[in-house]
Amino acid sequence: MRFPIPALDDVARSAAAARQAQLTKPAGALGRLEELSLQLAATQGRARPACERARVLIFAADHGVSAQGVSAYPAAVTAQMCANFCAGGGAANVLARQAGAEFELIDVGVAGILAPHPLLVDAKLAPGSEDFTLGPAMTAVTCARALAIGAARARRAADDGVQVLVIGEMGIGNTTSAAALMVAYLGCDVEDACGRGTGIDQAGLERKRMVVRQGLERHRAALGDAEATLAALGGLEIAAMVGAMLQAAALRVTVVVDGFISSAAALAALNLQPALKPFLIWSHVSAERGHRQLLDALDAEPLLALQLRLGEGTGGLLALHLLRAACRTLDAMATFGEAQVSSAAAPPLRTGTPS
Amino acid sequence: MRFPIPALDDVARSAAAARQAQLTKPAGALGRLEELSLQLAATQGRARPACERARVLIFAADHGVSAQGVSAYPAAVTAQMCANFCAGGGAANVLARQAGAEFELIDVGVAGILAPHPLLVDAKLAPGSEDFTLGPAMTAVTCARALAIGAARARRAADDGVQVLVIGEMGIGNTTSAAALMVAYLGCDVEDACGRGTGIDQAGLERKRMVVRQGLERHRAALGDAEATLAALGGLEIAAMVGAMLQAAALRVTVVVDGFISSAAALAALNLQPALKPFLIWSHVSAERGHRQLLDALDAEPLLALQLRLGEGTGGLLALHLLRAACRTLDAMATFGEAQVSSAAAPPLRTGTPS
Repeated sequence: MRFPIPALDDVARSAAAARQAQLTKPAGALGRLEELSLQLAATQGRARPACERARVLIFAADHGVSAQGVSAYPAAVTAQMCANFCAGGGAANVLARQAGAEFELIDVGVAGILAPHPLLVDAKLAPGSEDFTLGPAMTAVTCARALAIGAARARRAADDGVQVLVIGEMGIGNTTSAAALMVAYLGCDVEDACGRGTGIDQAGLERKRMVVRQGLERHRAALGDAEATLAALGGLEIAAMVGAMLQAAALRVTVVVDGFISSAAALAALNLQPALKPFLIWSHVSAERGHRQLLDALDAEPLLALQLRLGEGTGGLLALHLLRAACRTLDAMATFGEAQVSSAAAPPLRTGTPS
Repeated sequence: MRFPIPALDDVARSAAAARQAQLTKPAGALGRLEELSLQLAATQGRARPACERARVLIFAADHGVSAQGVSAYPAAVTAQMCANFCAGGGAANVLARQAGAEFELIDVGVAGILAPHPLLVDAKLAPGSEDFTLGPAMTAVTCARALAIGAARARRAADDGVQVLVIGEMGIGNTTSAAALMVAYLGCDVEDACGRGTGIDQAGLERKRMVVRQGLERHRAALGDAEATLAALGGLEIAAMVGAMLQAAALRVTVVVDGFISSAAALAALNLQPALKPFLIWSHVSAERGHRQLLDALDAEPLLALQLRLGEGTGGLLALHLLRAACRTLDAMATFGEAQVSSAAAPPLRTGTPS
């Protein structure tokens, strides 16, 4: 599946830059907010980009590898947390309400049966991915279907007028899949990629590393192909996230990457289509081991560093406030001319004159 | 002037910590937001702290030292920017509107005449501070009056039900005063404390360093006394910020420190009353040279690092979203029990049961 990633809009970017230079502040004084505003202008294709209408997509699925004891929580927690999201009790719900962001939970492959709910999209492909130490996590066909599910959710958001998507997830065991993808795509050390996830003990961490090594060994033949790698070591929700990111960018919807798993999905997406790169906003660096190295490998500078390690799109939802600040300052600040404020090194105008 | 800084409320803090441990997330997974929620509980004295009602106080004044050519902008810009704030066109206006924060501009000593405006509090003590290379920036009496003005604005906010105050400023030349205060209180190098402010060139930076050296030399006798140091090298708006911070903390109103000048005011306030420390929230590290070192000297870990260098409370207004996220997740997330989600290492409950 290929997504036609559009070209950056240099006209919109230049117009935004020209306006930034006229706003009542020293040049560059809003730092990364100014850079963000230009990136958003170029990717949205608008001189005045906007991130007002936002939606968090939480893709949920279980993982066959969780049977190997790689998580501090039982696999049943995936379904329980989905029910918690539907009831509005998760951290992501609270942060979405705070940000005025719409909330959508997509069951791509949760093991349990979820009760129908207005926030829930039932797109279950299987009761979880397969254990990648025994075979591929997904067949090529299932992986393609998961990509298509994510893409469909991004298209639906674009059709609804959503300007920015936060890509989050829920899935017990998915830091193991994310770590395996990181090693597969970056060729880094297994030790560096595997962290404690939801809080596993040292013995569990050793098991997790062993599981990742076994997966990489078993699927060595797949590693030359980006999509085959995703199918072999990823997860249903991770593949759906990849599809959502690529489709959103194709439609000039801003994509906010969340934490370690979301970044692993972005890594997979970038391996599929490198042109995606400027369309991604890296919201935060998490406390999960491996995330900083993954971001560094992509030359990705996150906006926040708050020691979060929760997933669910929580870091992305926090960063949404910064994206809006970037758009709103560009759009709504007065220019030097409008406000009759003297520019640097210019002769002073008369004072005390409200515009 | 002494402000009775209250004791930390350990009961409220413990109650918040106990609740954090029950919320549907791995222990500690919200990282610094969890720490923040406990700090806010202890300082506000409430098990469920809140940062919903917020106000930014922008203290404005001119500086005698600006006549020495230490700024890229003419002094008239202070008054012009005050008019811009009243018209709603400043970055701080835009970010306050985004955050739903109330906006108050206090003229403590702007050189120009400002037209009356509902957002503007006229508390002008003088048309700017004196040039500290020639004498003290303020007399002891004027400094005390400026402190009292800031304190009065904090009391007024508390009376209005404001839960959190962002302490910002506007004043051409005030990075020079802030740098002088930093050197005076911390004993650090002048080179490290002086940066480019609004964007002065290399020759201007050298002048600025010379000016700071002259000020420190002239006022050496004052340096042993925290309030005399503030009067000698500070500014009218900086002294008012000190008073606002101390009075807010005394009333258990949360104090958000903004950038370099706001941090220099916090440094002065801490030298006056060290017990203030846990009541301060350090919103961001700015791109202004000296700010990181100032924060490090106070063991202050800022929430944001966005290369801002604008002042006006802009970094504090951005951090307000994070403070609210800390309060709202603590308050509104479901507990494991409420959501019937299994805790770590506990036996799984039945799945798919919305609470």
